Amino acid sequence: MLNFAVGPVEEFRETLTIGGERTPYFRTEEFSAVMLESERLILEFSGAETGARAVFLTGSGTAGMEAVVLNVLGDGDRVLVVNGGSFGERFCKICAVHGLPHGEVRPDAGRQVREGDLAPFDGQGYTALLVNKHETSTGVLYDMALLADFCHRNGMLLLVDNISSFLADEFDMAALGADVMIAGSQKALACAPGVSVVAMGPRALERVARNRPKTFYLDLRAALADGERGQTPFTPAVGVLLQIHARLKRIAATGGAASEVERTRALAEDFRARIRGLPLEVASEAPSNAATPLHPTGGRSAYGIFEELKAHHGLWVCPNGGALRDRIFRVGHMGALTMADNVALIEALAEVLRC
Amino acid sequence: MLNFAVGPVEEFRETLTIGGERTPYFRTEEFSAVMLESERLILEFSGAETGARAVFLTGSGTAGMEAVVLNVLGDGDRVLVVNGGSFGERFCKICAVHGLPHGEVRPDAGRQVREGDLAPFDGQGYTALLVNKHETSTGVLYDMALLADFCHRNGMLLLVDNISSFLADEFDMAALGADVMIAGSQKALACAPGVSVVAMGPRALERVARNRPKTFYLDLRAALADGERGQTPFTPAVGVLLQIHARLKRIAATGGAASEVERTRALAEDFRARIRGLPLEVASEAPSNAATPLHPTGGRSAYGIFEELKAHHGLWVCPNGGALRDRIFRVGHMGALTMADNVALIEALAEVLRC
Repeated sequence: MLNFAVGPVEEFRETLTIGGERTPYFRTEEFSAVMLESERLILEFSGAETGARAVFLTGSGTAGMEAVVLNVLGDGDRVLVVNGGSFGERFCKICAVHGLPHGEVRPDAGRQVREGDLAPFDGQGYTALLVNKHETSTGVLYDMALLADFCHRNGMLLLVDNISSFLADEFDMAALGADVMIAGSQKALACAPGVSVVAMGPRALERVARNRPKTFYLDLRAALADGERGQTPFTPAVGVLLQIHARLKRIAATGGAASEVERTRALAEDFRARIRGLPLEVASEAPSNAATPLHPTGGRSAYGIFEELKAHHGLWVCPNGGALRDRIFRVGHMGALTMADNVALIEALAEVLRC
Repeated sequence: MLNFAVGPVEEFRETLTIGGERTPYFRTEEFSAVMLESERLILEFSGAETGARAVFLTGSGTAGMEAVVLNVLGDGDRVLVVNGGSFGERFCKICAVHGLPHGEVRPDAGRQVREGDLAPFDGQGYTALLVNKHETSTGVLYDMALLADFCHRNGMLLLVDNISSFLADEFDMAALGADVMIAGSQKALACAPGVSVVAMGPRALERVARNRPKTFYLDLRAALADGERGQTPFTPAVGVLLQIHARLKRIAATGGAASEVERTRALAEDFRARIRGLPLEVASEAPSNAATPLHPTGGRSAYGIFEELKAHHGLWVCPNGGALRDRIFRVGHMGALTMADNVALIEALAEVLRC
């Protein structure tokens, strides 16, 4: 099977080799050195400012999202969430579970957020913005300059879920004035799923230090304290952390984050050029390099196309759930994919769509 | 390196093979079938009663511990914790973070819990007992019959952290009247770390259904709902779940839980017989088959022995932290170890201890 899902994605051979190795005992200087170097590279690749820190949580990206809400936010906060799909909705649910007052900016599915969407919330006393930079369910890469400007104007924290966009699209935490960036192991890092990364700038770190811990497992203060010596409070997903370290080092050796973003952009653009002529339309005003959301225009069910590619062509694309199930499927461009893989997918799509 | 740590442990070759394979897309019927079979085998191997359920959380064992406290317990509960080491202490901290009133039974390090330890708490209105069946930090396997009898007499829920004891020591959830059992991927299951398993009997399930969710990521109600069709609310550690499934099936094919417990018991007894004559004493009144806690009687630092075995003999044993660091180290008997490995460790220990 060739994997065009949006995560977990196709792994590189080096990553799989580490996956097949025995898990080392990890309360050692050797493992600490690995972790400290990974932290440094995550901060470098996210453009974090001096004094920023990053921690590695064993859990899905959602664990990172909830950790940020629980540790960075607290009493007195009023949160604004950009809710243009199921991952924005997830931030709203996390706020609701923890009784955090929040408002919602609601661009329609597939639509970019615009100045007019934000205007009603200007000067309304919001203290923080939660945004999935790439709303992965609909494939919209939000206009971060617009959102950052809004936050700056309103003196708000900017907390960015960058899970499916880190290393696939440009991101400069310091230039943007973002206070938090969340990443995940199984997207453009192309490692096994199971680790979420949370990078924090000085304002977020100050919040974490000041807030009373409201969670034990997702306590970022404890993770930061143990992270100072390259360790974690609990047994982590050691193998995934070793995969992440090796991948970060390889990216560093081959041009850094910019070159990885460029590689993904080239794959996405190649794919989008090749679908011209097929009865498919890109269902997003502003797609990320990470994935192309597609709507079949000839009346075919999007989920049916996923099923047929899986059953008869040895290909996984990424179906949608809920209301979008029959309308949209997604093609990922992250991980160990090549332009030849794009050609194989296009040929299969042409056959499935009978054109 | 040969791994005698208490987790992650030495993996079997089949497990490593799966670790080296590409992560499949998981929102599929094939993966759902795997998960449903794993749930069934976990319940079978823990002796859970009919109607019990098990879910798989992506996280350390501590994620499972906190999930149980947050989902099964709630307003009106008064919790008793057996706190005889750092894992009992962890349950206390989890209760404290969430404002759950709790008392503590405090056997000394290395000592079994006795009727007299429990007497002061009899008839005092406690509603639930939290216990690490194997207090892994000190290597004490608690007297579960005594604790179960106490719970039964007092109408209390019995919530068992069985992380480092599942498949290493006997456990029969239904016979014991336990309401919850927590297990982990990296102990006797001998898979990569990153997954915690929570099995729940009918009383615990009823609690989970009734309680208001207090966590998003660790919401057991959501995990149970998605688990009905073999899925998880968030992207799980797919590879670890495939390892767990293969391992459970292999255990089923080679005699089930009893035979796996017997294999571990034989390794532990063999090791304990071989250390006679060395300046080491077993530092627990009631060791688990999972590990032997050892105190060097000749004045050597326990941590120093760990370091020397690692640096010069290619062997990992498991050091302790905190106050026990120089007093105790532990030798694990879980995972792909053999009696020949015991011989190698004994020879190295004899050399390190110069006898």
